Amino acid sequence: MTMDLYGFWRSLATFRVRIALNLKGLDYREHPIDLFKGEQHEASFRAINPMTAVPALVEPGQPPLTQSMAIMEYLEEVYPDPPLLPASPRARAHVRAMAMLLVSDAHPLTVPRVRNYLSDVVGLDEPARMAWITHWSRAALGAFEQQLATSAGPFCAGPSPTIADICLVTQMVGARLTGFDTSQFHACNRIVDHCLELEAFARAHPLKQQDAPRPR
Amino acid sequence: MTMDLYGFWRSLATFRVRIALNLKGLDYREHPIDLFKGEQHEASFRAINPMTAVPALVEPGQPPLTQSMAIMEYLEEVYPDPPLLPASPRARAHVRAMAMLLVSDAHPLTVPRVRNYLSDVVGLDEPARMAWITHWSRAALGAFEQQLATSAGPFCAGPSPTIADICLVTQMVGARLTGFDTSQFHACNRIVDHCLELEAFARAHPLKQQDAPRPR
Repeated sequence: MTMDLYGFWRSLATFRVRIALNLKGLDYREHPIDLFKGEQHEASFRAINPMTAVPALVEPGQPPLTQSMAIMEYLEEVYPDPPLLPASPRARAHVRAMAMLLVSDAHPLTVPRVRNYLSDVVGLDEPARMAWITHWSRAALGAFEQQLATSAGPFCAGPSPTIADICLVTQMVGARLTGFDTSQFHACNRIVDHCLELEAFARAHPLKQQDAPRPR
Repeated sequence: MTMDLYGFWRSLATFRVRIALNLKGLDYREHPIDLFKGEQHEASFRAINPMTAVPALVEPGQPPLTQSMAIMEYLEEVYPDPPLLPASPRARAHVRAMAMLLVSDAHPLTVPRVRNYLSDVVGLDEPARMAWITHWSRAALGAFEQQLATSAGPFCAGPSPTIADICLVTQMVGARLTGFDTSQFHACNRIVDHCLELEAFARAHPLKQQDAPRPR
């Protein structure tokens, strides 16, 4: 069974779902929805996801699954192997809390619709908009780095990648794409580098997608 | 066993956890951390939660649980009765996606640290700041209203309250406290009114907390 993933090369939430699908060895084809051109608002996509947001994951004959965290929890419940959450409730809570630190405290502040509002309505110039993005990325990654202080493993929690690693890699890669220097976050970088050596992470990278800008 | 909840009357994330604890009939005492005064940054609270964020839920002898969504998932796993998520993976995904629409697409844009940045760094005046808050609340509640279009039940999904209802009630009550007119969201209001008739929701209301401003 091949799933249909509606996404965008530059969407970090789509990037999360690609990694989760890859880690679980699930088959999918991606349909690019260009958020920069506003394709999420076109009737053809509204028919698929009235919420006009990516990612939307469609299993044949089923309504779309939306919201990256909800999609990853769904995949974890329906396709439990390999697991993306630890076994014990406390360890799961820790992994979910780390993920939410980025998914809810950082990423929503830097998505295209917010960047557009800041320039179009608030009237911020590019340096001020960049300062905004950098400010919230740095705060969340600093908090994440602090959470990793007591961990020395190759991944955020335990011997294999979890949802926390997925969210960390996507946030860090997104920051790098924006031009934000992340070198101060040593523990984060160590984990990201380790994850990106895995094919499931590497293949999901924004710049490796069919709709990404090509090197000239 | 009594749990310790570190929170703030005006924190919608704490409000979510209070409702979940109440619905599950769990015993807790709340310790107010005044976010407006910056008490989350004081050493005494840093010793409890180095992330300097509320809510933090402490079970005796255990490290704090943080991030409201992670806490609710934890409570669901450890204290499954009554459930706050439906049984089937697809229904669970739908409930989680509705919750995330508010928890990640709306609420993070209106928390105190963002409002402070908008006034202190960006230099927005109060009407512009209010327009910002209203804009993101309206967008998310409009999307939520659309998701409820096909549902006629007393709650967001099924015959009993779920995490989606908790997130809806907290977002709507927060919007009302801010002075944002939510009357256009008919389906949302119907569900919120129904939920607030339940003691578990009503008792968790921000204005009923010990640290809330008293009517004069």
